[in-house]
Amino acid sequence: MTFGTIATWRMAHDSVVEATKLLESGTNASDALEVAIKQVEDYPFYKSVGYGGLPNAKGILEMDAAFMNGDTFQIGAVAGIVDIKNPISVAKKLSEEKFNSFLVGEGATQYAKDEGFEVKEMLTERAKKIWEKRIEDMKSKQLNPYDGHDTVGVVTLDQMGSMSVGTSSSGLFMKKTGRVGDSPLSGSGFYVDSTIGGAAATGLGEDLMKGILSYEIVRKMSEGLSPQEACDQTVYPFHDLLTKRYGKAGAFSLIAMNKKGEWGVATNVEFTFSVANDTTKPTIFMANRGENQTTSITPITKEWLDAYEKRIKAPIE
Amino acid sequence: MTFGTIATWRMAHDSVVEATKLLESGTNASDALEVAIKQVEDYPFYKSVGYGGLPNAKGILEMDAAFMNGDTFQIGAVAGIVDIKNPISVAKKLSEEKFNSFLVGEGATQYAKDEGFEVKEMLTERAKKIWEKRIEDMKSKQLNPYDGHDTVGVVTLDQMGSMSVGTSSSGLFMKKTGRVGDSPLSGSGFYVDSTIGGAAATGLGEDLMKGILSYEIVRKMSEGLSPQEACDQTVYPFHDLLTKRYGKAGAFSLIAMNKKGEWGVATNVEFTFSVANDTTKPTIFMANRGENQTTSITPITKEWLDAYEKRIKAPIE
Repeated sequence: MTFGTIATWRMAHDSVVEATKLLESGTNASDALEVAIKQVEDYPFYKSVGYGGLPNAKGILEMDAAFMNGDTFQIGAVAGIVDIKNPISVAKKLSEEKFNSFLVGEGATQYAKDEGFEVKEMLTERAKKIWEKRIEDMKSKQLNPYDGHDTVGVVTLDQMGSMSVGTSSSGLFMKKTGRVGDSPLSGSGFYVDSTIGGAAATGLGEDLMKGILSYEIVRKMSEGLSPQEACDQTVYPFHDLLTKRYGKAGAFSLIAMNKKGEWGVATNVEFTFSVANDTTKPTIFMANRGENQTTSITPITKEWLDAYEKRIKAPIE
Repeated sequence: MTFGTIATWRMAHDSVVEATKLLESGTNASDALEVAIKQVEDYPFYKSVGYGGLPNAKGILEMDAAFMNGDTFQIGAVAGIVDIKNPISVAKKLSEEKFNSFLVGEGATQYAKDEGFEVKEMLTERAKKIWEKRIEDMKSKQLNPYDGHDTVGVVTLDQMGSMSVGTSSSGLFMKKTGRVGDSPLSGSGFYVDSTIGGAAATGLGEDLMKGILSYEIVRKMSEGLSPQEACDQTVYPFHDLLTKRYGKAGAFSLIAMNKKGEWGVATNVEFTFSVANDTTKPTIFMANRGENQTTSITPITKEWLDAYEKRIKAPIE
């Protein structure tokens, strides 16, 4: 039977490996997705998701996450949640609620505590150092404070034909308190329908929510486009439209998988992702915008991977 | 030249009258929209928006609002903002920001204060009484706490051909702290593109965000459907799909206007709205789901209006 997983960024590769094992052995899409995203949230060297994520302008690590079930359209989401170990698990639990399924700020944190989710100090010493250094650099070098907004987004398809999508992010580094990006917003950050396919986004949330790209990719797949065609024909026209109408398009990258386990991506910046299905083992690829509204996709090189490994663990000076 | 306004619920009628005057005299769509929504926020007898709105389970009035500019796709939004007189004005201001344009909880309230927006105790004695009575009723009658989620949503078209959309809501009565509905979520609660048209939603936000209906209506109008066709062909199929896949569809109602000032609505519950354009003066209509995926729309009766007036001002016992 068919199954598959696609996930944003190299950071999610180990999760794709894990999800693939689970899906292969019959685990359902929702549970495999939760395991996959938790793994990224737990890893201290990924500075844009969960533990080790970078804090907001006040030094507080506020996290966003969402979960959607492609069978039932159930959605759960949190934004601005603080010191909870696995925001994705809170989002998944909230998706079971008919009311109050999207909670923000203190309400989200309190809900998680009341429901017994693990509390953890999520701001690492390393993240704090990076934050302090950035504050200094901003003063001395007049830097734009905002960069780094690498959401983990995952789409899973299980052998029963069910699909799920989830996202988790610490959001824009140096964001204002309470800032929400696209990650917890359905249609923008994620969308899935098990009878069609699913999609998820990473990038500048403020611009992604102008385009509703995850929904649009799924909709285009419903008309018979392949995931790659749907990504190309959604992302590049929107990039160009936004550039024309708004003046500038922020960075964004989209991933998609359909109910057959076929996949696609499109991006306006250099973008890594990991994907696997029943015929292809987990593989990291590099994507860039190609010519004529297409995407150039190449296997990742060992050099890139080595440099990445070194970069994420480099001492903060 | 063409201009127009459509808005959800009878409560927005006086705002449609006011917006029509402004648009007629050349005011732009964004400013007319802000005036229209502020008027609803300010009126104490509308218990689902702004001043006089009903509080959450803890007795705190948390408000959501959003603004979108159909020329530039700029979006600003707030959720869970407290004791700020006009959330729509905060959302409109945030739409000018490239980063941090969607703020929630304390971050949203603090931003509004820092930017000099008027602070006001928004919980009225009347709303507090209704809340207290509800708490009692829930104890004695085992009532479902959740009802009442009438968002004001407005679409405006000005003589220069620009369009805007905005929403404002105190959300679900008795919601959990930090609960966010569809009102501040682009695609679900609102969407607009001046070259096509705009749409906005009211209803159970938890279900609206499963469907991305505002975006879908605008998209269908881009394919040449009239606003009424776009509403009918989006809302009823989604109602049926959600009933099949999720088991139940909550109440929802959508409004739309295209760049020619033509309008449409669709709803799965009894729904009033007000609309005007350059050829038709502001009029309140009543809509219901009709046969064969259509909407039945009739002018409001004097009896209904009289009963409404009496109901919203009835003493709370």
